[in-house]
Amino acid sequence: MRPRDGDSAAAAARAPLLPPPAPRRAAARFHPLPLLIAAAFAASYRLLLFAPAPSYYQYLFLSLGSNDTAAAHLRALTVRPHLAGTEANAAAAVHVASALSSHSFPTRLTPYSVLLSYPARRSLSLSAPGRDDTTFALTQETYPGDPYAAVSAEAVPTFLAYAASGSVTAEAVYANYGRVEDFAYLAAHGVNVTGKVALARFGKVYRGDIVKNARDAGAAAAVLYTDAKDYAPGKAFPDGPWMPPTGVQVGNTFTGVGDPTTPMWASSEGCERLSVAEAMSSDDMPGIPALPVSGRDGEAILQLIGGDVAPEDWQGGDGAPTYRLGPGPAVLNLTYTGNETMATIQNVISVIEGKEEPERYVILGNHRDAWTFGAVDPNSGTAALLELAQRLSELQKKGWRPRRTIILCNWDAEEYGLIGSTEWVEENRAMLASKTVAYLNVDCAVTGSGFYVSATPQLDELLKEASKQVQNPDNGTQSLYDLWMASNSSRLIGRLGGGGSDYSAFVQHIGIPSLDMTIGSGYAVYHSLYDDFIWMEKFGDPLFQRHVAVASIWGLVALRLSDEEILPFNYSCYAAELENGAMEINERVLGMPVSLSPLHTSIKEFKSAVLKLEFELKALQTWKIWPPWRKNPLKARDINDRLMMTERAFTEREGLSERPWYKHLIYGPSLHNDYGAELYPGVDDAIQTAKRTNTSKSWQSVQHEIHRISRVITQAALVLSGGLT
Amino acid sequence: MRPRDGDSAAAAARAPLLPPPAPRRAAARFHPLPLLIAAAFAASYRLLLFAPAPSYYQYLFLSLGSNDTAAAHLRALTVRPHLAGTEANAAAAVHVASALSSHSFPTRLTPYSVLLSYPARRSLSLSAPGRDDTTFALTQETYPGDPYAAVSAEAVPTFLAYAASGSVTAEAVYANYGRVEDFAYLAAHGVNVTGKVALARFGKVYRGDIVKNARDAGAAAAVLYTDAKDYAPGKAFPDGPWMPPTGVQVGNTFTGVGDPTTPMWASSEGCERLSVAEAMSSDDMPGIPALPVSGRDGEAILQLIGGDVAPEDWQGGDGAPTYRLGPGPAVLNLTYTGNETMATIQNVISVIEGKEEPERYVILGNHRDAWTFGAVDPNSGTAALLELAQRLSELQKKGWRPRRTIILCNWDAEEYGLIGSTEWVEENRAMLASKTVAYLNVDCAVTGSGFYVSATPQLDELLKEASKQVQNPDNGTQSLYDLWMASNSSRLIGRLGGGGSDYSAFVQHIGIPSLDMTIGSGYAVYHSLYDDFIWMEKFGDPLFQRHVAVASIWGLVALRLSDEEILPFNYSCYAAELENGAMEINERVLGMPVSLSPLHTSIKEFKSAVLKLEFELKALQTWKIWPPWRKNPLKARDINDRLMMTERAFTEREGLSERPWYKHLIYGPSLHNDYGAELYPGVDDAIQTAKRTNTSKSWQSVQHEIHRISRVITQAALVLSGGLT
Repeated sequence: MRPRDGDSAAAAARAPLLPPPAPRRAAARFHPLPLLIAAAFAASYRLLLFAPAPSYYQYLFLSLGSNDTAAAHLRALTVRPHLAGTEANAAAAVHVASALSSHSFPTRLTPYSVLLSYPARRSLSLSAPGRDDTTFALTQETYPGDPYAAVSAEAVPTFLAYAASGSVTAEAVYANYGRVEDFAYLAAHGVNVTGKVALARFGKVYRGDIVKNARDAGAAAAVLYTDAKDYAPGKAFPDGPWMPPTGVQVGNTFTGVGDPTTPMWASSEGCERLSVAEAMSSDDMPGIPALPVSGRDGEAILQLIGGDVAPEDWQGGDGAPTYRLGPGPAVLNLTYTGNETMATIQNVISVIEGKEEPERYVILGNHRDAWTFGAVDPNSGTAALLELAQRLSELQKKGWRPRRTIILCNWDAEEYGLIGSTEWVEENRAMLASKTVAYLNVDCAVTGSGFYVSATPQLDELLKEASKQVQNPDNGTQSLYDLWMASNSSRLIGRLGGGGSDYSAFVQHIGIPSLDMTIGSGYAVYHSLYDDFIWMEKFGDPLFQRHVAVASIWGLVALRLSDEEILPFNYSCYAAELENGAMEINERVLGMPVSLSPLHTSIKEFKSAVLKLEFELKALQTWKIWPPWRKNPLKARDINDRLMMTERAFTEREGLSERPWYKHLIYGPSLHNDYGAELYPGVDDAIQTAKRTNTSKSWQSVQHEIHRISRVITQAALVLSGGLT
Repeated sequence: MRPRDGDSAAAAARAPLLPPPAPRRAAARFHPLPLLIAAAFAASYRLLLFAPAPSYYQYLFLSLGSNDTAAAHLRALTVRPHLAGTEANAAAAVHVASALSSHSFPTRLTPYSVLLSYPARRSLSLSAPGRDDTTFALTQETYPGDPYAAVSAEAVPTFLAYAASGSVTAEAVYANYGRVEDFAYLAAHGVNVTGKVALARFGKVYRGDIVKNARDAGAAAAVLYTDAKDYAPGKAFPDGPWMPPTGVQVGNTFTGVGDPTTPMWASSEGCERLSVAEAMSSDDMPGIPALPVSGRDGEAILQLIGGDVAPEDWQGGDGAPTYRLGPGPAVLNLTYTGNETMATIQNVISVIEGKEEPERYVILGNHRDAWTFGAVDPNSGTAALLELAQRLSELQKKGWRPRRTIILCNWDAEEYGLIGSTEWVEENRAMLASKTVAYLNVDCAVTGSGFYVSATPQLDELLKEASKQVQNPDNGTQSLYDLWMASNSSRLIGRLGGGGSDYSAFVQHIGIPSLDMTIGSGYAVYHSLYDDFIWMEKFGDPLFQRHVAVASIWGLVALRLSDEEILPFNYSCYAAELENGAMEINERVLGMPVSLSPLHTSIKEFKSAVLKLEFELKALQTWKIWPPWRKNPLKARDINDRLMMTERAFTEREGLSERPWYKHLIYGPSLHNDYGAELYPGVDDAIQTAKRTNTSKSWQSVQHEIHRISRVITQAALVLSGGLT
């Protein structure tokens, strides 16, 4: 998982709100009577037909949550570090596949040979005039009594995947969070980064962009560290949830998506491939040597960096030394040799075939590979998935079969650039594009407290409804909806424009309605050795009720999408979202030679289409007992296909300018921060360029991008209304 | 319509085989008893359910053909020249729309504002040392008693649409058919074309490519003429079917598709547009002044061209002077001023809504606009469409309603680059791509004798079956199938890779199974003033039974596609086609560093998918009386969607290299001849380049293109088999 934009600092502000310790098998206390009555009522007319209503199984599903099951799976999955491409991760795949097979869900492994990156040699030393050299150990220390101390040796040495191999000795420059604006500040203040080693702290933008920005500023190498202000404002693990002084955030720096040797296509057997050298010379690779270091090592370097004092918001927390910009006198000697090698990864795919509509898919996905133990990232999600599967198996024993096919996916090599999910989506592109109703992603199920959701907007209402039926795991008298409403200061529902997790290929490459959710927003031991079962048990989710809550809403949304005759999609939220985006653009281009009228026209068409569909649905629903689609399933199929394919119509076959893999013109990553979830990314990029260059041609590009989004919105309106011109 | 590759010469060989004159309302003599018995039998079990079987209506449809109706419509449509963008063509649209509305088929006009091209000023004169100058009249003469003499003045002056405006005085060079190899021959024999006027004859490649090849060879202008050897080997119109001495082939020279101001998107109201200047500077525009001239004028020029004698196969027919290469001493003074202007075009769209599956479309299309009267091109097709509609209306009165929606389309501005159909497809892209079963094109319904079909291969078997049920219009004891089998010397069924008619956007841009058919293969008065009702009545189809035959097979195929529960698609023909193509590639790359193994693997997968589907269908069809899909229409829908979407999977979103509008990787135009219908066009282009340059990189490009087609074939195999990896 890649955390949300700026969440490391946010994580500090939202320290886990821990419930008091309690026995793990805490009985669920959230069974409001009205819901049960509603269930019985909803089931009644269906009972006449000897088949329970979908809502019956939904309530049954909610009642079956088991924190023990979730905890047991998490413990089993995290006994050892299990990095993508390792034997340990293959063993974890077997665990997942066995668990799913044991419910007699047909389950298979899909292997791909892909380019992964491991460290072969690393060293970092610090020197400065008049001082002894320091050679950093680059090791994360275990603590006395750590039950995972022995297997910790199996963890990959701290590194940044796909960093260039090389050796650099040069003065250090401090670059704050390594954003474009941080390097611009250095340039404006006469700090020359060329040929230097840039020291930047994790947390505001994707680490791959930090290294890329350093490279673009001319740095010869980059060192990234976890600043205590962001990651350790309180007691460190194992005494508290925060990052220990030697903790290091390991991670990926490739800014592309999927296997680097197969850009745009699947890594199938015998397929076309770039050579490793070609793949490594891509502009999506960092291109310079880079290493991540601990807070302690970062601070040691900063203490020897002189020059002008850095601005206030570049400084550290209490007790930190004064941060200065450099360059020097600290000199860093960094050596990194990477081992970029083809390795086999394995997705686990498990299919619960639909009874009435087997050729329509509701896909649930989570990844399995982890930088270390992965108790939070990603196996809290894997545990939730397996707990959810356990409940579906119970449902099946009670006679349930989904109307549509439910597919449970456990991806591999997400950490290396969403590789497992991307290759699978590319391999099955035509099938998935014409048959997938929705993709529901959970990466880290539990990182702390609070409920956070991102989704394509037609799912907003469904999420709200479902969250009202699930218990708040931290407060037995409340619903998850209450927790959600209390968790978000700015916007309630995030969007899926960023490259944060495995939804990327589904949304951005082929236009599938998708969501991503988690309990908790950020956590300090992210991608470090300390992301283990003990951390989860002590700080993340002692009762494992948060895991259950995620499994509950995940499964409930899946059941509603798989079982309801008419898909519970609401496109009026989408229309509002498109309109808000247009208003934002309007503010940004005020006074410039750009007309938004095509965009306004297309949104108007889209809104009319939404109204038309709602009217049709209302007319049909007047036959409550025996709606027309029961007599003619093709009628429902028509409406459902319109609902399903509308999202697809937001994709344009040529894709974003200069980033052709990204086909979705409404949601896609911003050019300078892969975590950024911009609406209308093509327009955003063009406006940024036009504001910088202010040429007539650059404003024409803005207009062109506005026309492009208008065209896909018009296509979507036609699909939703079901009309031809 | 653009004729088939090399058909002008072929036309000479296949002079219309005229049946003896006979009264127009010749009773159909082809009602073999077995067919009627089969009809009754097939209808029987359905009658128990009080609904006749589809085959009942199919036989009824065949029995309703009316040559009088076809003739009356053709006469009405061709009373005046009706070029795209003119008032006369708008009047023709009203005729078509009224005819369709009169059957109470909901009918609408879809207007687009597009860039058309008209001549504003033209002059051409010939001079040579020691002779008086000749100024050509550039007029096609009418004949004594021509009933259309008066309205002939309304015809557009002879010109080549989108030719560049300009004035050129230069020596003439003779360039045979203006192919790449013809200009290569001139270069090899020391004939410098630079700055000269290239004189080339029509007939072997698309005229737009002739002008482009001349430009690429350095010519300052081009003059295209109709050589008597190809167009007038016998008695000229009105005494015979051949081109009169002053007849001129008018036509388009734009090599793109659709409105030149909206490449890649629809010309909707308020849409983004290139300026006229931008559009005219596209590489798809001829870029030099050019004019078409008559055979008489062409010969006059050739008589004054000296230099080396041209090779034998560059010479004219009996009585022609000796053709020499030039340059000079003939000097041509050519002035052309074009009026490129935005004009309104109108498609007519008529919808017969399906009863069971209204959201699945079977689309029939023909264009309406003509360079002059258009009796052959295209209104023989329009007359057939209206005659067919008349029969469907009779069926409707007898209780028929199609299972799927039938859409009758009458396109505008086809002659200017398939504009009307292309804009409509672009505008409705997302809808059409997910809902269209097939597109059935007829441009010229009747040009002479013989039956010629092009199709995507899954329609091959259906076409054969249907043709056996339709009477040979020239022989009452035979079927159309017999005529077809006797008509084709080389291959039986053409393919749709070329840019010949309105199927282009359907097949090549969005991957819809399509066909195109005609009775007759080429005709001499093509695109001249003499393509009028008199020509058709005297030579093309005196009895109008050929029109009826085209309407019969067109409608029968449409009825089978619209009414049968399982789509009558056969993909084993497609597999064989893919395999033949692979064998051809194999021969061309023998000994080169190229592996076909990915292609062989993908074709193997495709063949397995075909077998799997056939097996499934066979298993289902054991319940003949009450097949499973009658109980569950979604089962049939699943199979039909797989059959329908398989063709779509042959498209790749990025399209052909450097020609991104062309998304279909199996069928697309060859780079140097827009008429060419290559299989695997991307591979073909790459091989041509590699054979020319023979660099390692160029052979890698061939390998890349082989991988690309392998990938789409693998996608298609997954779609057809309905499986996910």
